[in-house]
Amino acid sequence: MTRYEKLADEIDEMIRRGVYRPGERVPSVRQAARQHDLSITTVVRAYLVLESRGAIESRPQSGYFVRAREAAGGEPALNASTPIAVSSTVDVSRLVLSTLRSIARDDAVPLGSPYPDSALFPSQRIARHMHAIARGRTRWGVVDDLPPGNPELIRQIARRYGERGIAVDPNEIVVTIGATEAINLCLQAVARPGDTIAVESPTFYAMLHAIERLGMRAIEVATHPVDGIDLDALARILAREPIAACMVMPNFQNPLGFRMSDARKAALVALLERHDVPAIENDVYHELYYGEVRPSALKSFDRRGLVLHCASFSKSLSPAYRIGWAMPGRYRDRVEKLKFLNTLGTPALDQLAIAEYLGHDGYDHHLRRIRKTFAQQANLMAAMVRRFFPDGTRISQPAGGYVLWVELPPACDAIALYRLALAERITIGPGHMFSTTGNYRHCIRLNYSYPWSPQIEDAVRRLGRLVAFASDRGAVGGEGGGTARAGGQDGQGKDQGKGGPKPRKRPTNQEGHDDEPTA
Amino acid sequence: MTRYEKLADEIDEMIRRGVYRPGERVPSVRQAARQHDLSITTVVRAYLVLESRGAIESRPQSGYFVRAREAAGGEPALNASTPIAVSSTVDVSRLVLSTLRSIARDDAVPLGSPYPDSALFPSQRIARHMHAIARGRTRWGVVDDLPPGNPELIRQIARRYGERGIAVDPNEIVVTIGATEAINLCLQAVARPGDTIAVESPTFYAMLHAIERLGMRAIEVATHPVDGIDLDALARILAREPIAACMVMPNFQNPLGFRMSDARKAALVALLERHDVPAIENDVYHELYYGEVRPSALKSFDRRGLVLHCASFSKSLSPAYRIGWAMPGRYRDRVEKLKFLNTLGTPALDQLAIAEYLGHDGYDHHLRRIRKTFAQQANLMAAMVRRFFPDGTRISQPAGGYVLWVELPPACDAIALYRLALAERITIGPGHMFSTTGNYRHCIRLNYSYPWSPQIEDAVRRLGRLVAFASDRGAVGGEGGGTARAGGQDGQGKDQGKGGPKPRKRPTNQEGHDDEPTA
Repeated sequence: MTRYEKLADEIDEMIRRGVYRPGERVPSVRQAARQHDLSITTVVRAYLVLESRGAIESRPQSGYFVRAREAAGGEPALNASTPIAVSSTVDVSRLVLSTLRSIARDDAVPLGSPYPDSALFPSQRIARHMHAIARGRTRWGVVDDLPPGNPELIRQIARRYGERGIAVDPNEIVVTIGATEAINLCLQAVARPGDTIAVESPTFYAMLHAIERLGMRAIEVATHPVDGIDLDALARILAREPIAACMVMPNFQNPLGFRMSDARKAALVALLERHDVPAIENDVYHELYYGEVRPSALKSFDRRGLVLHCASFSKSLSPAYRIGWAMPGRYRDRVEKLKFLNTLGTPALDQLAIAEYLGHDGYDHHLRRIRKTFAQQANLMAAMVRRFFPDGTRISQPAGGYVLWVELPPACDAIALYRLALAERITIGPGHMFSTTGNYRHCIRLNYSYPWSPQIEDAVRRLGRLVAFASDRGAVGGEGGGTARAGGQDGQGKDQGKGGPKPRKRPTNQEGHDDEPTA
Repeated sequence: MTRYEKLADEIDEMIRRGVYRPGERVPSVRQAARQHDLSITTVVRAYLVLESRGAIESRPQSGYFVRAREAAGGEPALNASTPIAVSSTVDVSRLVLSTLRSIARDDAVPLGSPYPDSALFPSQRIARHMHAIARGRTRWGVVDDLPPGNPELIRQIARRYGERGIAVDPNEIVVTIGATEAINLCLQAVARPGDTIAVESPTFYAMLHAIERLGMRAIEVATHPVDGIDLDALARILAREPIAACMVMPNFQNPLGFRMSDARKAALVALLERHDVPAIENDVYHELYYGEVRPSALKSFDRRGLVLHCASFSKSLSPAYRIGWAMPGRYRDRVEKLKFLNTLGTPALDQLAIAEYLGHDGYDHHLRRIRKTFAQQANLMAAMVRRFFPDGTRISQPAGGYVLWVELPPACDAIALYRLALAERITIGPGHMFSTTGNYRHCIRLNYSYPWSPQIEDAVRRLGRLVAFASDRGAVGGEGGGTARAGGQDGQGKDQGKGGPKPRKRPTNQEGHDDEPTA
């Protein structure tokens, strides 16, 4: 760990412990340099890290101040999760597929989409490369593109890791059909049907899919919404029962959006090494950091080849190409063989076109633009949810990516809400997709990659009203959806339903149109 | 079965039984119509079928004559295989991958390639569609292309089956990453690790890969080089032990090139139905028939949803796009779910571009061209092998596709030959890839999709010399490669080595250059 990362972690910890309170000024760069006996440059870099994590903010000519971790409205922040530490079989894919299909409706506001707004992608540039490549070739290098993959694409991927400060051996890289295939192959390389896999809670459903596909069991580990997976909780599980692998998303986890600190990443690797348990790292959002500091990877701390790192271009260059890759450490040959068996190769033109695109200089420009866009829209979406959603709503503080995790009043069932919202042409990601324990039935994931528009604001407003309605209905045991949390726990009783439509009347957006001009 | 197919099968059977001998005239169309009480048109169609199967040939103004089933040189035809009917685990993928990599060498004559000559493909037309599609879209219909796949592509695939006389429900189609993924998903949908799967012998290694990937066992079934899988042998196995699925390639099987008759296809489906065993049909070569008659599919005879039909555009429109599909009968939903779990979706642009290409009218023209090319080159390659390979060589009579199966003198080990040939910059497909029993160690597969050239003729000539050398070396127990058949069985003793280089001297093509001008 570098000095500045160490300093950033220390100050972060002090903020967390309340040594520095929200709104308070942290020591000036000069003061901190003196106090810690560090160079000015080191402190500046530490403060940039803290800024990118959303821990502090700079105010012109005043210095750095602790940001309010709690949202402006004063509602409490998300708590760490407390899943039941018992493994279970997995069966979420049907729900996820039907949810994804709902966003295929062109007329629906895509708050439930797992993908970034495709209008942001440089699809036309890549298409020009495809065309030029296809035109210039009379023969296809089909065999060049067999596993491990197109050599030029692999070189470009390795180069980007190098620029991120992560030295990788190009020979370790295996190109796959998106990160989905990479995760599947890596899991198959290290574990067998019936084995138990430790995952974050909530966890990205792509992880659960891989476990489901191979007939394994998932055990959810307590996870902090800012710090990531709880290392003590994981250590207790590792000490107690055989775990075949641990699947994590240390950077901008979907759905919580946290970035694990370098110290925690290193500690996670060390813990897994002690138990000789491989880690499968899903790093698909690594390019989508906010602020200036590129995130490290779990892989950066791997010395024994136990980290199987998976990533893709699906979140930064469109999921349409389905180009991902694995760096599977000591399991590299096994993963390459499984890739060959699973899909033979990865489409040649897509590999070549992306390699060509990366070889030119537009990618970093594109990334800077979408990072800035997402960082701004994170704040906008958070502000809209705070404004329009009922009391008892809590939200995540994403450090990167483009999704917000929203914990609704406990009586609100997210599947019931999903159905109500779909009838209003709004899609959402129900929390049921992110767990096998049923702990997140009152949570939803919202996509904020689409630029703010009156339509989106109107959709969030209507959604807030539906949440109030569904909480109310859930609390009185209404029809539709699971009612695991019916009865409520925080006073979201039926007398609070004033903002929502009357029961048995389908909610519409007519009321919204009273305040807003029709689009 | 139609009347003309029935008539064709009857005449075929009479030829096989020796009622009509090679070179003899079969009844004229008029005679046959009278004899069988059929219309002239029906008989003409039956004769076209027989012609396309290579059973008869028309001679101008003389009528139809039985073709010599045995090759011109008088060498015996291939016999039906006689594998040991005991199941075994599968581990061929490493060998296949290394063989495929050998053809990546630009400087090697690609007789070992499993792909058609890529110069034949309309890559530039498809690239133009890709470019136009990407240019015309600001947003990507990523979700449209989720399983089951792009609706327009599915519609085009269904339309083509309709034109082939096979009525399919578009809703049954699931688009996959090539036929490879289709076969994997279908096998996973019907069988579990440890189950036994019946396959042809020799069998296409793609089938063995799927079995290997899922940790199942393969049992090889005796297979006739013209008729296909031996139904009696299969019936005995089905009666004896539990078989989870039967994987077959009824049209232009790789490597044997046979086309099962409709009668045999129907009988195979009926047999499997009686045992309630699903059939996985790999139909990737269906467009590459010789003659005028499109082949039916096993699926055509399926009434109970037990046939899981898999195909792709990889052999007819380039493997570069990796677009395949499954029609999994009653297992359709399971396959769709597994597809979603395995790779999420199939690359959007590739799906769209092929749909667009199919919607225009160039595909059938392209197919007519390559079918004609392959049919001609089949004869050329057979003639070259007969001319240049030593006595004791037997060859297949492909009814479609673009590969020739060559049985070498038993003492010739194909892996040893593969190494010798590679040193001479010639690639071949060693028979070891097509079996788990070791029965085809003296067989090789040759690709004849590349147009005849002096280089290819020279390569086949040199290969013939290496075969003689390797048979000789194998017979005296020489170094290199497996020597399972060392000792020979047919008099290919060392005194026959006169055509080949002396032992311990690396074979070169210097001698060839004495007769041929240097290219």
